[in-house]
Order: sequence, then C-alpha cells, then structure tokens
Amino acid sequence: MSADTVTAGLLVIGDEILSGRTKDVNIGATAEFCTDLGIELKEVRVVSDETDDIVEAVNALRARYTYVFTTGGIGPTHDDITADAIAKAFGVALPINPEARAMLEARWKQTGTEVNEARLRMARIPEGASLIVNSVSAAPGFRIGNVHVMAGVPIIMRAMLEAILPTLKAGKKVMSVTIKAAVGEGTIGGPLGALQEQYPDVKMGSYPQMGHDRIMTELVLRSSDADRLAEAAGKVREMVREAHRKANLEMPDEEAY
Amino acid sequence: MSADTVTAGLLVIGDEILSGRTKDVNIGATAEFCTDLGIELKEVRVVSDETDDIVEAVNALRARYTYVFTTGGIGPTHDDITADAIAKAFGVALPINPEARAMLEARWKQTGTEVNEARLRMARIPEGASLIVNSVSAAPGFRIGNVHVMAGVPIIMRAMLEAILPTLKAGKKVMSVTIKAAVGEGTIGGPLGALQEQYPDVKMGSYPQMGHDRIMTELVLRSSDADRLAEAAGKVREMVREAHRKANLEMPDEEAY
Repeated sequence: MSADTVTAGLLVIGDEILSGRTKDVNIGATAEFCTDLGIELKEVRVVSDETDDIVEAVNALRARYTYVFTTGGIGPTHDDITADAIAKAFGVALPINPEARAMLEARWKQTGTEVNEARLRMARIPEGASLIVNSVSAAPGFRIGNVHVMAGVPIIMRAMLEAILPTLKAGKKVMSVTIKAAVGEGTIGGPLGALQEQYPDVKMGSYPQMGHDRIMTELVLRSSDADRLAEAAGKVREMVREAHRKANLEMPDEEAY
Repeated sequence: MSADTVTAGLLVIGDEILSGRTKDVNIGATAEFCTDLGIELKEVRVVSDETDDIVEAVNALRARYTYVFTTGGIGPTHDDITADAIAKAFGVALPINPEARAMLEARWKQTGTEVNEARLRMARIPEGASLIVNSVSAAPGFRIGNVHVMAGVPIIMRAMLEAILPTLKAGKKVMSVTIKAAVGEGTIGGPLGALQEQYPDVKMGSYPQMGHDRIMTELVLRSSDADRLAEAAGKVREMVREAHRKANLEMPDEEAY
C-alpha cells in the first residue's frame, strides 16, 4: 500500500448508453470499487462506438490519471471496436493472441460452440497487452500501459474488476461521515461554508433529500485523516444542533445525526 | 423542425457521483430526452466539484456540440460552484440576477423562509444568461450561449428539461427496431457485419442478454429513414431465422423476433 494519491478515469463505450436504451450501472460500480481502494475516480466519459472518439478520450485520460478503466465494445460483432481503437491509440498491431485464443477455444470445446471469424475477433489483443481473465464468459479483457479494457455487461465488468484488483496500487483510504439535518441547505449553507474553510482537508458536501415528510439535508464529510474527520464532524454536528434549536425543532432522535 | 443533425454533450457535476455515494440517473434521463427529440447525445462527462475541471469540460463540449446540458452544483452551499465555473468559462461576471432573486423571494415569502447569504447564492446568474424555470423548488437554472445549466436533483432536472424543450431545435427523429435472436452474438456476428456493410445508413448494434434461461441476443437497428430501416430489419430477421434453423432451434414464437 502506498500513501500516494492514486487517480483514475473511466471511459464507458457504447451507443446504447447515449441513446438511453441501456441505463449504465458500471459508473456507480467502478466508483465504489475505486473508493474502496482509496483510488480517486476523477473523471468519467461516455462515448459512442466511433473509433476516433474512443482514441481521443482514451489518450486524454491515460495521460492524466494513474489508471484508466474502459467498459464496453469487446464482443464478437462489428460494433465491438474497442480493441481496434485501443491498438490505434497506442500505435500497436492487433493480432490474434494465442493465450486469448486458447482460453476461448477451451470454453468453446466445453460448450460445443463453433469457431468462426466473428468469435475469433474476441482473441484479437493489442501487441504488448496482458490479459484480464473473464470468469463469466471466457472472452478476456486486457491491460496495456495504464489502461484496463473490460466488458460492458455489468456482471462481467465486475468479475474483471475483481480480477485486476490485486494488480492495482491502493491509495490513501478516504473515510466519510454522514450527518443528517432537518433543515434546508439554505439554512446551514453559511455556517457550513465557514467550517469548510476551517477544515480544508475535510471535504464537505451538502445534498438536499427530496421525498421525505419533512425537509432533510445530508452533509457528507470525507477525509483520509481520521482525527481531523472526527473533529470536523463534531463541529458540524454542533452547528446542526444549533440550527435545529434556532428553528425550534424538537431535538431529533440520534438517527437524525 | 429542422432536418439538420443536432448534437448534444452532457456534463454531470458532482463528487458524490464519482465517489459512488450517489448513483446517477440524469445520464439515462437526458439520453432518452435527446433521443425523443432527435438530438444525438454524443458524449457525457462526469467531473468533480472543482472549478477548473468544470471550466475545461464545458469549454470542450460547447465548442463541439449544438447543445450542452449540465446537471448539479447550483444549490446554496459552498460546494455548489457550477455558476461560478460557467461564468469563468464564458469570461463574464456573476451578479445577483433581479429576476432570479424575485422568483426565490416569492417562494421564500410563501414558505416563511429567511433570506440569507447562502440562499442568495442561488440568485447569482452569469451576465447575459437567461433563466430556466424551476417548477419544483424555485431556484432557477440558466442558459448561456448553447449551455443549459440545470439542477442535479433528478426531479428538478427533469422539470428543467421540460422547461427548455420548446426552445430546442429538434433533429431528424431516429427510429429503432429490436430483433431478438436465440443464438449467441458469435453465431450471428459474421452475417450481421455483412448486413451492416450493405446498410451503412442503418446502425446495427448487438447486445448479449444475460440472465435468461437460454442464450439471447438483442439486435437493435436505428435509422432516421423508415423505409431503409424496415428493409434492413427484414434482412436481419431472415438472417436470424436462418441461424435458428442451422442450430436446429424450434422456430421461436413471434415474440422472439
């Protein structure tokens, strides 16, 4: 474990996300995966199945962050062009990879599946890449440089994240405390901003909660320093109690903090 | 209605999405909104609550697409910096807007809410922008140039999309046909790719369906030309029937196509 800041960018590839036909769940899963490892997910981009768009996005992200994760476009059909685009981005060839082919053929043998040109597309891996095992459906992802190319199908994407986990450098774990307030954001915005200035190393976010019976605001404090986090959380709780008192609110139960 | 191609980029702003704490739903909603209007959503970016990141992303997107939509960061707390970032991106001042202030004060009067500095942050609107009405909680969004700045809370975001709808230029409506196949992507990848080459104006996507009792693949054809779409769909259905026949599958019921 290193104490360095470790950052990541995520590239989601697929027309079906941009048309609204498929609702993405890989952004949330990757965000949680990164947070658990102390990796700061700094940016996400979603682009269509167009080679130039993928090349441009992956080159922008890989220059900027410790790691890049991509999801989507590694299947056997003509619209699966991620491997082609990554090879182009890195300026390398895209031959059939013998190890990938062996993995696929072993699975096809088991299932009595015919080998054809479309299926062999999935064994094309950019030169110099290492494979990411796919425990669900055999077709591997790959890692080249700091870029990890994974499937778009969520269950396979998650299996691939698990597969690469041991190879990733973890960052400083960020802890968080959530504090609930029974007043609106506008009421506590001023004092919260003042506390944020006092604790620049504890990031304070404020999120209005809709759909409750009464006004609710969630304040989320995040820091990699447990002591400073606890101290700031104490101050924010005190500020919320004061706001409740001023609003003549009954002191809400413990749960409300 | 113009028959021109109309494009859009979406910028989602918020640490809570990148940490995984909040699962975004605005991407899917905006994608559907655009598709319904014939606007091609070409790219989505998610960035954190950092002024420079927002400025860079909004400047990249507004130069590239007909419209830019942003969600998040327009509330009353210190972490709501979208208006500041947009003013910076356009190089304009960010004064209190009298119209926005009047909208907010009318609501606050109704609800007996105190006017304070934090709440007045929500009336700061970049010079030259016009307001986007917020029918849910009064605090307006705004439009400056081709950029539409909206709330992150999904219900407010949707209300704002409805509010701007009449001001947007619609594009050529894209229609779609979904065809289900009871074989894997690898089986039909070859013939599907050949049909895609015959119908370059009908975009064909292939999506494996996990979690069914048997192997299922959904083929989605999209085009703004109804006749070509119908012709291509006929060819694809024929191709799927042939694949089923070869696999000695019982002809699935109509539903399977």
